[in-house]
Amino acid sequence: MANNFIVRLAKPSDCEQIADLIKELAVYEKMEEQVKITADVLRTDGFGEEKFYHCFVAELKDKPLLVGYALYYYSYSTWEGRSIYMEDLYVKPEFRGKGIGTQLWKSVTKVGIEKQCSRLDFIVLNWNVNSIEYYKQKGAFDLTGTEKWHLFRMKESEMKAFIAP
Amino acid sequence: MANNFIVRLAKPSDCEQIADLIKELAVYEKMEEQVKITADVLRTDGFGEEKFYHCFVAELKDKPLLVGYALYYYSYSTWEGRSIYMEDLYVKPEFRGKGIGTQLWKSVTKVGIEKQCSRLDFIVLNWNVNSIEYYKQKGAFDLTGTEKWHLFRMKESEMKAFIAP
Repeated sequence: MANNFIVRLAKPSDCEQIADLIKELAVYEKMEEQVKITADVLRTDGFGEEKFYHCFVAELKDKPLLVGYALYYYSYSTWEGRSIYMEDLYVKPEFRGKGIGTQLWKSVTKVGIEKQCSRLDFIVLNWNVNSIEYYKQKGAFDLTGTEKWHLFRMKESEMKAFIAP
Repeated sequence: MANNFIVRLAKPSDCEQIADLIKELAVYEKMEEQVKITADVLRTDGFGEEKFYHCFVAELKDKPLLVGYALYYYSYSTWEGRSIYMEDLYVKPEFRGKGIGTQLWKSVTKVGIEKQCSRLDFIVLNWNVNSIEYYKQKGAFDLTGTEKWHLFRMKESEMKAFIAP
């Protein structure tokens, strides 16, 4: 059973399955009503002329089923330069405990090292104690706990209101 | 005195002054010892073949002095697609109160709208109450206060340890 999957970069034809996995993760995070993404949007944004994200997928060796994904993009620190941000890391519940998530996360980490990124960031919901334990065990630390940083946001409506003449 | 500045996209030759402004902001944030960036790194990362950030600057009309900057990059939400992230917004203390910061922030917001970004995110230190008031007044809200999101990080040393064979 071990290693009956491969981790590879996503292709445009994966976008339907990636969109399904994104929805599964949102259900797990109890926020499925906020998911507006579609396979077509993922295809345009990840594989068009301008690339807004990159993605690794885990695929079974014996059938064309994606069982996990790690989606990332480059961020930038004015103190330390290039950074990599892992937006999502997800493995279908029935395929957990086989090292798939760790291999996906390592793939993103390797890209970060290759691109000379000084850090890898990601957000975890604070009720998700199992994931927090897992991430900490692998060497990540909780910046919200140690630093006094608050994440602020404008949504599209506030953005438009802000720049209105 | 009003409008004796222009806001424009940064050029490679601005990088020395941008690096100086970055250091000024870090002093204000009481974290200057963490700044490792240099003008050369900013030039490579912002104006090389692969662009890791973008930047607007505010320049005086009567002399070639940069008095503020807003540095941003594109981020990505798997729920809502394209997003824009404002890493820094800074105006030299002696030039505040003239609308320069707001014009820089609006320039980033306009790019976000043009690129069909669904949101604009940024981080504020929680002791910086003057800035928090200003940002809220313009329509931004504090996600750390309302959602249970914790920002996690691996630094380069943890990244390398994580992928070590």
